[in-house]
Amino acid sequence: MKIGFIGLGIMGRPMALNLLKGGHEVTVWARRAESMAPLLEAGAQGGANAAAVAAACDVVFSMVADAADVEQVALGAGGVAEGAKAGLIYVDMSTIAPAAVQSIAARMAERGVTMLDAPVSGGEVGAINAGLTIMVGGDEAAFEIARPLFACMGKAATLIGASGAGQVAKACNQILTGVGVMAVAEAFNFARKSGVDAGKVREALLGGFAYSRILENHGQRMLDRNFKPGFKAWMHQKDMNIVMQEAHRLGLMLPSSAATAQLFNAMVGSGMGEDDSIAALKLLENLSGD
Amino acid sequence: MKIGFIGLGIMGRPMALNLLKGGHEVTVWARRAESMAPLLEAGAQGGANAAAVAAACDVVFSMVADAADVEQVALGAGGVAEGAKAGLIYVDMSTIAPAAVQSIAARMAERGVTMLDAPVSGGEVGAINAGLTIMVGGDEAAFEIARPLFACMGKAATLIGASGAGQVAKACNQILTGVGVMAVAEAFNFARKSGVDAGKVREALLGGFAYSRILENHGQRMLDRNFKPGFKAWMHQKDMNIVMQEAHRLGLMLPSSAATAQLFNAMVGSGMGEDDSIAALKLLENLSGD
Repeated sequence: MKIGFIGLGIMGRPMALNLLKGGHEVTVWARRAESMAPLLEAGAQGGANAAAVAAACDVVFSMVADAADVEQVALGAGGVAEGAKAGLIYVDMSTIAPAAVQSIAARMAERGVTMLDAPVSGGEVGAINAGLTIMVGGDEAAFEIARPLFACMGKAATLIGASGAGQVAKACNQILTGVGVMAVAEAFNFARKSGVDAGKVREALLGGFAYSRILENHGQRMLDRNFKPGFKAWMHQKDMNIVMQEAHRLGLMLPSSAATAQLFNAMVGSGMGEDDSIAALKLLENLSGD
Repeated sequence: MKIGFIGLGIMGRPMALNLLKGGHEVTVWARRAESMAPLLEAGAQGGANAAAVAAACDVVFSMVADAADVEQVALGAGGVAEGAKAGLIYVDMSTIAPAAVQSIAARMAERGVTMLDAPVSGGEVGAINAGLTIMVGGDEAAFEIARPLFACMGKAATLIGASGAGQVAKACNQILTGVGVMAVAEAFNFARKSGVDAGKVREALLGGFAYSRILENHGQRMLDRNFKPGFKAWMHQKDMNIVMQEAHRLGLMLPSSAATAQLFNAMVGSGMGEDDSIAALKLLENLSGD
């Protein structure tokens, strides 16, 4: 089985490398030649464009920035659909809106391409260590074919449901982690402003129902004042924007998600976009006069 | 060492029983005679009022509804201060505002009484099973004297800091659990409204950074449509009101806590006050046309 990989940035590069390490023949393409170089050195083939990658492969992955990029890679001039052999499986692993996936998947199906949405969580570290959580939407038979390839990149791949369901699960993940970060930041700032050691509060609360991985790991990083990404605030802002756009489309009230989206807006607006999302604590501190 | 216990409701009764089971001599008082009966049957002494309990004891606990009750029990006519021997340790385990504790503790100190604030988390089940998490503020020597008594009632007691610090930790706990419940309810309603199985989303997310005890336990109860308390929505509403009053007093912005407090207001307003706080999911479903 020949594998294609399109988009070789912070996430895509280590993911494609892990497919190579898994013993697969991988053909890559990225807009910038310098993004392709490390993959070619590691033994990947290079394609002239996405269409050429698709023509050479049975399963093609993409990992790009947003829905416009996915649309371009999938359906644009020189895109996957243009070069696809009959029966191609196209797996987009970017984080975009569920509605965007469904629209692109429907048009790919007309060209004989089966599309899966397979966004990930775990960040750059998870991409490097093959520790990603992969949430998949689309056809079950295609998922079974892709499953051993997912296993090269992540510790768990779950078929959530039909096309778009992977993106819905990812949106839920971003709600829980985004709101979770804000809740911990609010609690820690509340403690500090009350003259109480936030570290002792965290320790006491880890044993009870307030336990979360965010409180344990991100909470410790907040106490260490370690705001290096990790997962950048502007990326979480982008993902919460997808959540709020979907909420608008579906007529859904998401109040704690909305408050969190606004805080990410304020982080980016006040120059913290390149910090880790846990720098939300600094924002709240600044606003309480410290 | 003779122990007093004042306030024998849903929480206080099993906590006092666990002190008896721990082999301690316990003298109790409650406003209603029928609340005292089960303790007297189990071997406790009965006091005529809080002052009489204080006169007979070295350490007196109270577990009542709100700050007005604590003030009455501590400093009112027939209250703890009135009967207290020199050196009495008074431990209030109710959930009230940190500022209220500090004010009451200062006045108790003038009467020679050392007051600890020691609110708990873990609910009725934790009270019965001696599985409470106990967050303590106040004097360290008094904490060391009370520690073996806390061990009869809870699995962990932590001295967080000075007077009021236990209440600050409890407020942080209520922020994290309250906002946590709302985030899970929002994510599950988002999934359902998107046509995706919330149970599969939960399962996929438990392995990653979105993991929380709320997602695991309360999330499963939401999927089971089991809205029996547990911890009632009106109680969480009351606690979030303490949080928001403290935020106002301290000049603190707590946006996700504020959104959550509003949702608890809406739950109580729409007749869900006696449901578990996880019935937030039903509220969100009702508001999305289902």
